[in-house]
Amino acid sequence: MDSEGAAELAVTVKHRPPLASVRRGQASVVHLKDQWFIAATSRELGKKPLATSLFGTPIVLFRNRQGTPGALLDSCPHRNVPLSLGQVSEDGSLRCAYHGWCFDTAGACTFIPSLTGPPEAKARRAFAFPTREQQGFVWVYSTPSQGEEEPAKQPYHFERMGTPGYGTVTQVVEADGTLYSTIENALDVPHTAFLHKGLFRSASRGITITAKVHRSADRAIAEYVGEPRPPGIVAKVLSPSGGVVTHFDRFILPSIAQVEYSIGSENHILVDSAMTPLSDFRTRIYSVVSFRTRVPHALIRTLIKPLALRIFRQDAFILKKQSESINLLGGEQFASTEIDVLGRHIWRLLRAAERGDTAGGDEHAEIELLV
Amino acid sequence: MDSEGAAELAVTVKHRPPLASVRRGQASVVHLKDQWFIAATSRELGKKPLATSLFGTPIVLFRNRQGTPGALLDSCPHRNVPLSLGQVSEDGSLRCAYHGWCFDTAGACTFIPSLTGPPEAKARRAFAFPTREQQGFVWVYSTPSQGEEEPAKQPYHFERMGTPGYGTVTQVVEADGTLYSTIENALDVPHTAFLHKGLFRSASRGITITAKVHRSADRAIAEYVGEPRPPGIVAKVLSPSGGVVTHFDRFILPSIAQVEYSIGSENHILVDSAMTPLSDFRTRIYSVVSFRTRVPHALIRTLIKPLALRIFRQDAFILKKQSESINLLGGEQFASTEIDVLGRHIWRLLRAAERGDTAGGDEHAEIELLV
Amino acid sequence: MDSEGAAELAVTVKHRPPLASVRRGQASVVHLKDQWFIAATSRELGKKPLATSLFGTPIVLFRNRQGTPGALLDSCPHRNVPLSLGQVSEDGSLRCAYHGWCFDTAGACTFIPSLTGPPEAKARRAFAFPTREQQGFVWVYSTPSQGEEEPAKQPYHFERMGTPGYGTVTQVVEADGTLYSTIENALDVPHTAFLHKGLFRSASRGITITAKVHRSADRAIAEYVGEPRPPGIVAKVLSPSGGVVTHFDRFILPSIAQVEYSIGSENHILVDSAMTPLSDFRTRIYSVVSFRTRVPHALIRTLIKPLALRIFRQDAFILKKQSESINLLGGEQFASTEIDVLGRHIWRLLRAAERGDTAGGDEHAEIELLV
Repeated sequence: MDSEGAAELAVTVKHRPPLASVRRGQASVVHLKDQWFIAATSRELGKKPLATSLFGTPIVLFRNRQGTPGALLDSCPHRNVPLSLGQVSEDGSLRCAYHGWCFDTAGACTFIPSLTGPPEAKARRAFAFPTREQQGFVWVYSTPSQGEEEPAKQPYHFERMGTPGYGTVTQVVEADGTLYSTIENALDVPHTAFLHKGLFRSASRGITITAKVHRSADRAIAEYVGEPRPPGIVAKVLSPSGGVVTHFDRFILPSIAQVEYSIGSENHILVDSAMTPLSDFRTRIYSVVSFRTRVPHALIRTLIKPLALRIFRQDAFILKKQSESINLLGGEQFASTEIDVLGRHIWRLLRAAERGDTAGGDEHAEIELLV
Repeated sequence: MDSEGAAELAVTVKHRPPLASVRRGQASVVHLKDQWFIAATSRELGKKPLATSLFGTPIVLFRNRQGTPGALLDSCPHRNVPLSLGQVSEDGSLRCAYHGWCFDTAGACTFIPSLTGPPEAKARRAFAFPTREQQGFVWVYSTPSQGEEEPAKQPYHFERMGTPGYGTVTQVVEADGTLYSTIENALDVPHTAFLHKGLFRSASRGITITAKVHRSADRAIAEYVGEPRPPGIVAKVLSPSGGVVTHFDRFILPSIAQVEYSIGSENHILVDSAMTPLSDFRTRIYSVVSFRTRVPHALIRTLIKPLALRIFRQDAFILKKQSESINLLGGEQFASTEIDVLGRHIWRLLRAAERGDTAGGDEHAEIELLV
Repeated sequence: MDSEGAAELAVTVKHRPPLASVRRGQASVVHLKDQWFIAATSRELGKKPLATSLFGTPIVLFRNRQGTPGALLDSCPHRNVPLSLGQVSEDGSLRCAYHGWCFDTAGACTFIPSLTGPPEAKARRAFAFPTREQQGFVWVYSTPSQGEEEPAKQPYHFERMGTPGYGTVTQVVEADGTLYSTIENALDVPHTAFLHKGLFRSASRGITITAKVHRSADRAIAEYVGEPRPPGIVAKVLSPSGGVVTHFDRFILPSIAQVEYSIGSENHILVDSAMTPLSDFRTRIYSVVSFRTRVPHALIRTLIKPLALRIFRQDAFILKKQSESINLLGGEQFASTEIDVLGRHIWRLLRAAERGDTAGGDEHAEIELLV
């Protein structure tokens, strides 16, 4: 009986509310059904099963004999041992490590060692999630298959990946933040001047710019008008010669955060961050950075990774501390201002998607910010 | 306020269901009243108090002046400090480390330092559990004593321990599995070919054998008929010369898993595993292996321990992963087939024992398995 | 998906009661509103914000430009990131690390980078707790401010601190015990002979002494009459020449445990332990030891710290084990005797204070103890 056991049971001793009121039990967490999320890069998924999760639900990925990825609930229907401990057999079925039950990518039980009768039975099916493999990523649908029906929607397509004249850098990181907080963070302008001081922008130069916001059924877009060329390192690298800045931030359901920058006519950078909610407070970020610039692409590639990682580490630290704070207080209480430009639209779209609803009619707004 | 604290409180933030349905909050956990379980080996319990637990309840064992073991709730009635932190005083009472209150094996408070009046009072009694010491084990009854009444039942007797011509090896191990899963694992035939590949049996030889199952009020027995001599290492060690195989698997309430093998008339091996549910997901296994064979007993002894440990480590790993999976999903969902020969009978007997009921009338069945 | 995640979710699998009955979910935990507690020493609180907690609620301390301490809920009203990760800006406001929102000691939001409009708004206020700084300690009130109103009560005043002829030693330690258990432990006489054997008193010398107890509205006092000069080390140090012993133990709401000893007319020692409930099972103890004796004060100082720490470590170990036991059993069940002299009065006063009530009329009692 070690102290770990004690800690686990401690929760049965009555909790008391904190001294200052917060929304108890509430956190900006959504569970989105019927949506596609990236579960792995194509490269990661080889001959071995790969364990991951979606909204806290454990999922095992594997490839059948044709190389097509399958995604099953990572729990054998027989005795609930993780299927990811097993192996892919020669016929491309996933074999459980405990009793050797085998499953195909549709979740059907195809073999039970020692059994004289047929292996297939409804109760022996593993929950199977639809999959798609495209542009180097394995996508998983967040609702298990019902019979033969296939999802009507398709996964997100990275627009500039492979476009002639564009270079692409892909990066995978994880943060201890909710899906909502991680998306908002990726599209939030005001924190860049502060948290990432020196990297993007430094203290305000007293310039007022305008954010034109438009929320429609599946997305929210902010166009920043009047933005000066940023003084930070990023801008210097991208556009040594300056030029007019065009800047769009977009949230696209279910989980794409897109930042698009043009400086002059020569430089164009598109950062797509496809977020995967591993669990309520852990989000994986698949970033696809596509760029067109006169600067040699090899140089850009060399510069982007360490810079992006430095920015990301600062964000990840804050998101982790935010999650800890919310959990410590047993809930959250957010206050916003108009310069949390996309925050409330992201939340509204996510909540509507969780209900299987739409976020209401289009909305337009113009917001002023000091930069 | 470190992150551990945060993790502990995290549970107050609302949980959401997993993507695929499982029996929420359900796990094959039973709490059995009025039953005997081994709490320690006689050897382990010396002059110092010994902490253990039963169904998650902390229990302290100690010996009084006569050497008779006592078992008390490991929490002083005074201020709930674990009594196992204390010492056995010269008069054989257990003395708490905090204020020095003393208790006898019946749980009566026999001394309170500084108190002028009599120490005994009903509210100052420690919960005491009946104990028995036999065959080198200290057994504890899973219900505290009420007055003088003694349990009608007696602990299990290891039949071949000490029988002339038999050798015995005892082994104690622990697994992160429920009582049910650990018992089923110990008596499950199909997984041996798979999880323990090479140790017992390898891939199927296409031989059909029959399991004759009989469940009565307190036990379930499977007799395996037509079983060929196993090709694995275990069989070679036990019976170099071959012979007809007789194989019985028995579950005996509350927690004995018994495997009996005879090969020819010379070789007889009886493996009794007395399971002790330390907590809902941790089970200690006291294995008593009795054997009669022409092979020198000293050699058998030398071979059994490492072999048994190797098998056990594989099982323990799977049981731990099974428990993690069930807890991660917040519940379990088991699908069975007829070749889970004893599984459903074990569960039915355990559940009936938990209700203080019997499992219904006798049941007989014949099941075919491929080996 | 590591095993930590599994442990966190494990609580959703149904709990079952322990084998022996305890008060489920009950623990001697109180949350006291409208009370002053020490949050830090004046020295600790410099130019950097300092994180602490009160009843599990995270609190950040900082000093404004005048050096006056502020105490805010350690969670930015904006996105709930701990404010203690931020910095104190040049104007003495506390600036959040994420978006740079600034707050004054009253909790008002004084600056939001990038915002064109006024920063102040009710929803953007941080919860602020009244503070006082006196005698080298920063006190925090356990209820957030409502408007301009100031608490009617004042923090406790350490009576002999700075009195001519007195020396003072201050010490800060923490124990994994509830506020109640830690206070009772500090004022409990019987355990000293047992847990701290040799340091205070050894085995009983068969002397009967009397404790005169008096509980009034805000305190409980025990005067020990007839106490012989203690034989232990402590007494020898304090009073090499002997003399009549006067001994008072006092609990003063909300959380002062006071032990006062005089030996003869020359030696006087007053130990004030101001307890701060960091969380339900963690209590910080600010001890102020004031003494007047012929022994050189420098020598006393040198002796007190290691002695007090040795005693404290024994107490802290027991309190930690008590807390673990209560949490493991999911509740507590305390049995008391009359020689738990102040225990029930402490609990009654704490419970009354939690209800915002008084503990009923005065109570007097005389209790005999063997020492």
